[in-house]
Amino acid sequence: MGAGAWGTALAKVLADAGNDVTLWARRAELADEINDTHRNTGYIGEVELPASIRATGDAADALDGACTVLLAVPSQTLRVNLEPWREHIGADTTLVSVAKGIELNTLLRMSQVIVQVTGVDPSRVAVVTGPNLASEVLDEQPAATVVACTDSGRAVALQRALATGYFRPYTNSDVVGAEIGGACKNVIALASGMAAGVGLGENTAAAIITRGLAEIMRLGLALGAKGATLAGLAGVGDLVATCTSPQSRNRAFGARLGRGGTMESALRDAGGHVAEGVTSCQSVLALAKSYDVEMPLTDAVHRVCHKGLSVDEAVALLLGRSTKPE
Amino acid sequence: MGAGAWGTALAKVLADAGNDVTLWARRAELADEINDTHRNTGYIGEVELPASIRATGDAADALDGACTVLLAVPSQTLRVNLEPWREHIGADTTLVSVAKGIELNTLLRMSQVIVQVTGVDPSRVAVVTGPNLASEVLDEQPAATVVACTDSGRAVALQRALATGYFRPYTNSDVVGAEIGGACKNVIALASGMAAGVGLGENTAAAIITRGLAEIMRLGLALGAKGATLAGLAGVGDLVATCTSPQSRNRAFGARLGRGGTMESALRDAGGHVAEGVTSCQSVLALAKSYDVEMPLTDAVHRVCHKGLSVDEAVALLLGRSTKPE
Repeated sequence: MGAGAWGTALAKVLADAGNDVTLWARRAELADEINDTHRNTGYIGEVELPASIRATGDAADALDGACTVLLAVPSQTLRVNLEPWREHIGADTTLVSVAKGIELNTLLRMSQVIVQVTGVDPSRVAVVTGPNLASEVLDEQPAATVVACTDSGRAVALQRALATGYFRPYTNSDVVGAEIGGACKNVIALASGMAAGVGLGENTAAAIITRGLAEIMRLGLALGAKGATLAGLAGVGDLVATCTSPQSRNRAFGARLGRGGTMESALRDAGGHVAEGVTSCQSVLALAKSYDVEMPLTDAVHRVCHKGLSVDEAVALLLGRSTKPE
Repeated sequence: MGAGAWGTALAKVLADAGNDVTLWARRAELADEINDTHRNTGYIGEVELPASIRATGDAADALDGACTVLLAVPSQTLRVNLEPWREHIGADTTLVSVAKGIELNTLLRMSQVIVQVTGVDPSRVAVVTGPNLASEVLDEQPAATVVACTDSGRAVALQRALATGYFRPYTNSDVVGAEIGGACKNVIALASGMAAGVGLGENTAAAIITRGLAEIMRLGLALGAKGATLAGLAGVGDLVATCTSPQSRNRAFGARLGRGGTMESALRDAGGHVAEGVTSCQSVLALAKSYDVEMPLTDAVHRVCHKGLSVDEAVALLLGRSTKPE
């Protein structure tokens, strides 16, 4: 459900793994393009999709009879999308969240939004997450991912459905951990970008990634996640990819701020697209506060993006903290 | 003890933090250069050292009366260096290992070598490790590091001795974990380089770092390390820096192999300097085998470096493993 870059890439993985795939696109013209030309040029350029993928602009048509539904719409719009779909979801269908984020205001994880809107048992909700750039998955470059579900039978079924020569899913029962890593990483990528923009090198970058991981772990553990999940693909893996990739919009946005840009000029340079972390630092920080968890990097990013703190002041603040045990 | 790049950088940190520092250099001419010009051009270029650092070519002179001794000689030569120094070490001196590695043949960690050669109690041995490129520390760029010692009093004293505005030490009681991360990272950096050389992208890189961390953790836990240490600066931090840095000799060496070079041509291109990971994959793998720990990435690197396996075959082997839980 959703024919953006990641939804389309996952449709290709599922088709390559031998599944019957229907891809819902919001716009009927996009569904027509996919059916007629096996391409989705607006989102994935000239990559040719398997001819077996059937696209539709009709959500009910896509959902009817589906044993597994992957929800690939942006995290902040999942709720409004899901409401009209609810009645078309089968009684034993597995619902899979592939969007990363914490809902603003409610501070719910995506799997919680799904349970709240559809009323399904949490054991029917799975999460697919990891260091997976859509462009590279479409290019069939080797990638590993996490399939998390409290119901191990569903996790293994989804793992099989997604396993191809180039895409390697690992099962995990820790849904909370799988979601927290993806929700928090973009904020840390903003901090990494800021440091690089200021001209700081690789020791600083490694320290930011590691201390960022430490605060993500603190939040995750407070929410009931397992440390091992956050030390894995959904945590470390996704964090490293996002913090070091030149393709990361969040890192690039932070770098513009670090080079002395204002929020306004950085936004202009990014073509008006606000980086995900600018939004999610608000919900992540609010969630951390409600669990009394300290997240100094996230707090610094939040102050830079929303409270007028300069990047230089943020760096001085972080380095000035008193020395302590790791 | 040791005036290479890292030993000299740590001498500067200690002097900047207000300590009396004597720096032992193997060659008397190098000690003279440091005393006369406050430079060590052979190892650190034009960086000016604090005038308070006193250098000497006489090990007994350096060791006499020292409350803390940092051992900054290459890991495979620590034992032979340490033997003649033993008699000059004070009765309550803290001995600090700053070299990373597992001794070939004995398969001992550096702190174990120190205990074995000097006979001191293990509580007197500390480890300093983390994502710390010497060039950036000399440039006073912000960096974080781990000071590990089972004696928390010594750990805190060493933390204070190393704390400056740009260098931020975190204490940890887990000496084993602090050592294992540093000993294993260069092997994984070789694998990262190989994948990049073959042309694989960031999803693959993130998967290698994460799965590399997983096998380092397995080894560490088998040896009694804490997972949190390996999720911290000594594990994740150092691994990320080494696997992503263009300055990493191990990554560069692996990339030459990935682009189709032979071991001989890669060695020639590296000016005859064999990358550390080529040596250490042997001792790490032997240690893992003796504890019955699976390290598939380390094993693949070992086979490429020492058993004639091609990089393409190694990649196929790793991707062909059956799908499993994370």
